[in-house]
Amino acid sequence: MSATEIRSIGVLTSGGDAPGMNAAIRAVVRTAHYFKIDCYGVREGYNGLIKDTFTKMGPRSVSNIINLGGTILKSARSADFKTKEGRQKAFENCQKRNIDGLICIGGDGTFTGAQLFSEETGIKVIGVPGTIDNDIFGTDYTIGYDTALNTAMDAIDKIRDTATSHNRVFFVEVMGRDAGFIALNSGIATGAVDILIPEETDSIDEMFETFDKAAKRGKNSSIVVVAEGEKLGNVYELARITKQHYPNYDIRISVLGHIQRGGRPSCADRVLASRLGYGAVKGLMEGQSRVMAGIQSNKLVFTPIAEAIKKHNDLDPELKLISEVLAL
Amino acid sequence: MSATEIRSIGVLTSGGDAPGMNAAIRAVVRTAHYFKIDCYGVREGYNGLIKDTFTKMGPRSVSNIINLGGTILKSARSADFKTKEGRQKAFENCQKRNIDGLICIGGDGTFTGAQLFSEETGIKVIGVPGTIDNDIFGTDYTIGYDTALNTAMDAIDKIRDTATSHNRVFFVEVMGRDAGFIALNSGIATGAVDILIPEETDSIDEMFETFDKAAKRGKNSSIVVVAEGEKLGNVYELARITKQHYPNYDIRISVLGHIQRGGRPSCADRVLASRLGYGAVKGLMEGQSRVMAGIQSNKLVFTPIAEAIKKHNDLDPELKLISEVLAL
Amino acid sequence: MSATEIRSIGVLTSGGDAPGMNAAIRAVVRTAHYFKIDCYGVREGYNGLIKDTFTKMGPRSVSNIINLGGTILKSARSADFKTKEGRQKAFENCQKRNIDGLICIGGDGTFTGAQLFSEETGIKVIGVPGTIDNDIFGTDYTIGYDTALNTAMDAIDKIRDTATSHNRVFFVEVMGRDAGFIALNSGIATGAVDILIPEETDSIDEMFETFDKAAKRGKNSSIVVVAEGEKLGNVYELARITKQHYPNYDIRISVLGHIQRGGRPSCADRVLASRLGYGAVKGLMEGQSRVMAGIQSNKLVFTPIAEAIKKHNDLDPELKLISEVLAL
Amino acid sequence: MSATEIRSIGVLTSGGDAPGMNAAIRAVVRTAHYFKIDCYGVREGYNGLIKDTFTKMGPRSVSNIINLGGTILKSARSADFKTKEGRQKAFENCQKRNIDGLICIGGDGTFTGAQLFSEETGIKVIGVPGTIDNDIFGTDYTIGYDTALNTAMDAIDKIRDTATSHNRVFFVEVMGRDAGFIALNSGIATGAVDILIPEETDSIDEMFETFDKAAKRGKNSSIVVVAEGEKLGNVYELARITKQHYPNYDIRISVLGHIQRGGRPSCADRVLASRLGYGAVKGLMEGQSRVMAGIQSNKLVFTPIAEAIKKHNDLDPELKLISEVLAL
Repeated sequence: MSATEIRSIGVLTSGGDAPGMNAAIRAVVRTAHYFKIDCYGVREGYNGLIKDTFTKMGPRSVSNIINLGGTILKSARSADFKTKEGRQKAFENCQKRNIDGLICIGGDGTFTGAQLFSEETGIKVIGVPGTIDNDIFGTDYTIGYDTALNTAMDAIDKIRDTATSHNRVFFVEVMGRDAGFIALNSGIATGAVDILIPEETDSIDEMFETFDKAAKRGKNSSIVVVAEGEKLGNVYELARITKQHYPNYDIRISVLGHIQRGGRPSCADRVLASRLGYGAVKGLMEGQSRVMAGIQSNKLVFTPIAEAIKKHNDLDPELKLISEVLAL
Repeated sequence: MSATEIRSIGVLTSGGDAPGMNAAIRAVVRTAHYFKIDCYGVREGYNGLIKDTFTKMGPRSVSNIINLGGTILKSARSADFKTKEGRQKAFENCQKRNIDGLICIGGDGTFTGAQLFSEETGIKVIGVPGTIDNDIFGTDYTIGYDTALNTAMDAIDKIRDTATSHNRVFFVEVMGRDAGFIALNSGIATGAVDILIPEETDSIDEMFETFDKAAKRGKNSSIVVVAEGEKLGNVYELARITKQHYPNYDIRISVLGHIQRGGRPSCADRVLASRLGYGAVKGLMEGQSRVMAGIQSNKLVFTPIAEAIKKHNDLDPELKLISEVLAL
Repeated sequence: MSATEIRSIGVLTSGGDAPGMNAAIRAVVRTAHYFKIDCYGVREGYNGLIKDTFTKMGPRSVSNIINLGGTILKSARSADFKTKEGRQKAFENCQKRNIDGLICIGGDGTFTGAQLFSEETGIKVIGVPGTIDNDIFGTDYTIGYDTALNTAMDAIDKIRDTATSHNRVFFVEVMGRDAGFIALNSGIATGAVDILIPEETDSIDEMFETFDKAAKRGKNSSIVVVAEGEKLGNVYELARITKQHYPNYDIRISVLGHIQRGGRPSCADRVLASRLGYGAVKGLMEGQSRVMAGIQSNKLVFTPIAEAIKKHNDLDPELKLISEVLAL
Repeated sequence: MSATEIRSIGVLTSGGDAPGMNAAIRAVVRTAHYFKIDCYGVREGYNGLIKDTFTKMGPRSVSNIINLGGTILKSARSADFKTKEGRQKAFENCQKRNIDGLICIGGDGTFTGAQLFSEETGIKVIGVPGTIDNDIFGTDYTIGYDTALNTAMDAIDKIRDTATSHNRVFFVEVMGRDAGFIALNSGIATGAVDILIPEETDSIDEMFETFDKAAKRGKNSSIVVVAEGEKLGNVYELARITKQHYPNYDIRISVLGHIQRGGRPSCADRVLASRLGYGAVKGLMEGQSRVMAGIQSNKLVFTPIAEAIKKHNDLDPELKLISEVLAL
């Protein structure tokens, strides 16, 4: 690719929100300003491109947001952007501002839309991985993941206090439809006796074996961390089946839910978002397009969106073993 | 009452655990030691009295627990203690250690048991209010309430981040079967548009009116905090009915659940627990019995258990009004 | 006093900032709006009255600030307001907006200024106690105190981790020029072996006795919490003298400083600030003036400013004893 | 190297403590147990080897410590271990328990001692990087760094609240004698206008230029984050010089100090410590010695101690630039 002059860019957040998105927006806006590039914030994701909710942003527009959860640009799904007409309208709105680059902060769905839009319109796009699920190829970590992990861990730490006081078994559901990153890491960090994740084929019998082992070693309370997308069943079903097998168990359920999406971003997430926001603008200036900005081994890298969408970060297979060795 | 020499006491936690119970145990054990009184910790509440799980405790037994959630003495319900035989067995176990005073940390149910036990056996008892619900007469605050409030508030703050980013309505269930203290105060602290509590007769129509007002004033997202014991319906039902009325609303549910019972106690809870644990031992030494130790207007007071059980702390009626005035 | 119609009020923050001031501002602005009273925010305390930095505020001006530390109206000392000319200018600026009531959030100095201004101009004033020091008569708690306590406690908890790992003695300075509330309560909550406060005449020998007792009981590390205003010496002097006496001690110093003034307000502070802000507007509407709004025994009360300034909340004398009994 | 059977190992922590050391100890103890290797905890670092403070540890010895700051094995400097006689004594104590492997958790100094001990005695040693400074070659992150970063960031966030409310300039000192990792990353995460680190040659004039730029852009308050090891001067000197140049500035100082060493470890630190503790035991089993266990690009790697000591992780040079671009 060759460097071309970028005069004006847009930035939007799309898909599920993640802590650190604001830090990324701030980085994009201030980096653009530094390099004398006009920058427009677009509200409510791709919807905003179509509905023309562009706002010119300067350094002061993003003051005091680096430490806020959520996204000041808001996020939304857009059915219209999936239509050719919608994207055409979006393109026209971009043309009105001479926008020649778009930075799209979000996950897989966000990148798919960006890729298509760029192919159809020639507008340069760079994706920035913002999702708590950490399941995006081309970056060691996604924005929001570290914060969500700590939120889940803090919650499970609290649950452990009461589980231990009452000799209870808790099934705790954490986020992760397709990926077990949050479940596995928060489970290791809280000493969960078992961790159920979508990437693995778990069986009820193995779980019961784990309970038996724990009981034999004198553990009186147990926490099982279950990813949302677990195929063996959700926490309600797992609790029901467990109660049938162990009628004496005092079983409780906790669904952590949306608290995992909010909150002040951790230091790691703020720095990651700052680097990626900065890197995305630099990428556009250097002629990059249809790529995702990521950090690998502490270095900024660009991965073609096509590849980022197709592949997935794999869980370190040893981590599951470690969780079992350390829990008992 | 007249002061009689106390040589040996027991301490137990019973009912739902609450952050700060460990600080209260520590205070009882160290105060007893200071005044040269033997002190036994009894595990698993009244069950432990019957099953004879007494442990002699000294100042070092309670090192490094002031900052821990849960209760190192564990807690449990006891069906056996509700029988005459159970209590007789408990009495015999107390006699073996010459126990002439018992400090029972918990809620209403705990105090009822203590009162009965004292009436039957003559053993002096003092109750210490430990419950996150704050619904006990005779003290301005119960141990654990302040921590639970902050946990609920932190969680709702996080939910607000994502609610705002997606223009969503959230129904958030907080603890409180019979009392709306947590709901009302965490709701005010997070700017909830509506707060539903068991003490009030709410109607769906009033809630919808509130939504309409909020919409009129440009609020795009809303949080409704609902106490567990709300009579109008639980969060699932409320969400269903709301969706029928407002098909365009993007509605989500969050049940905060047991995270509210755990966690490092707040400063207020640690100090309260320290004062009450100390006060309970002093009370026994001064001849008090069948009373609950509480703090009112920053002073230690003793309330007859019979009274503490019968009456209830009322919510300040102005608080509900304030919540409505400030939310919009 | 008799109720007179209030049409227009001003609100300002003055003196050292405290977490929860924003929640109080929000409450004032929204309560005024609810009762159809015009409300002006004045920036930078009494300086702003003179420099004419008034801004009309509505319900949306105070969105999303209930959870923020600091004060959006900023705070400053004002030398000019201590002059007759300064106050005359301030009065003229108030007259321009027909301001007939002023709500001044701050501490003793703030209230002194408000009283004088009201006496000279006839403008009604109500003080709202906002200071982390908790040393104001007429309210059980001041806005910011609970948050500052938790901040101090969290910091000392962290210091304890490292003190214990290295068998060290730490002198930790917390805020409190004239009052030992933060020192005493955070010290109890963290199990400090000694707590030095301005209200007491401490001696070095007593402190050394405490160290000796602690050593005898097998304590290998110790934390001494020292209020800023301690007369025996600051933490540097205390450390030096202690090192002379115990050359083998590994002594460290920590001055917590300004972190105690910031941070997200606790639930207790947000609710307190909401009630006081609401109460102050109601007070003006009911004809109150030259009073401070406070909460005592969970009820809103008004205390003449003259009295609030003269008297002081006393520390519960038993608390110091409790701290000694429980620390060892 | 060739795999040899390991029957008995020792584990110790040495140097400055770091949050997550307990999680590493737990991982070592439980992994050893899993593989049927005897495991001894040695108290107070190398001193304990000499003083013979070995304790046999099993899975239950490390229950409920994964979430605690500090180190249950304590840490200390050891002058004796620097002598041949000291190390000989240590060797004899190891031989008594047939210890054929030693896992040493700490920093550079710890590893130097381990290497020497192994060379002299033939006992296998593996280092685990535990230090908040993150300045160790051979691992992307050291145990404790992420937690310390978040502690520093939280403190600076609080300081920002009060800095903004009073239009003040704050010089905040964070830890880092030789390395600017904490300063640079916490400074980026909090929007510090300037960040002074030992790796760079800063000049007062450049700092003043930055202040002037900030003032020109309407910033009324500023935070400068200064690493302990900054060569330009400590925070007191910097404040003094700045006051001379800008007499109108309201300047404050905050030294964060030892709070950065303590606290509940973050999720990242717990998981890192778990992986490294597990990996160290596996390394010994596989015949590794005189190496440090680290994680690079999310994979376990072993680096010769000789190399880990000699080289240093470099700061990403782009990060400093990013901090400047984003701060204004």
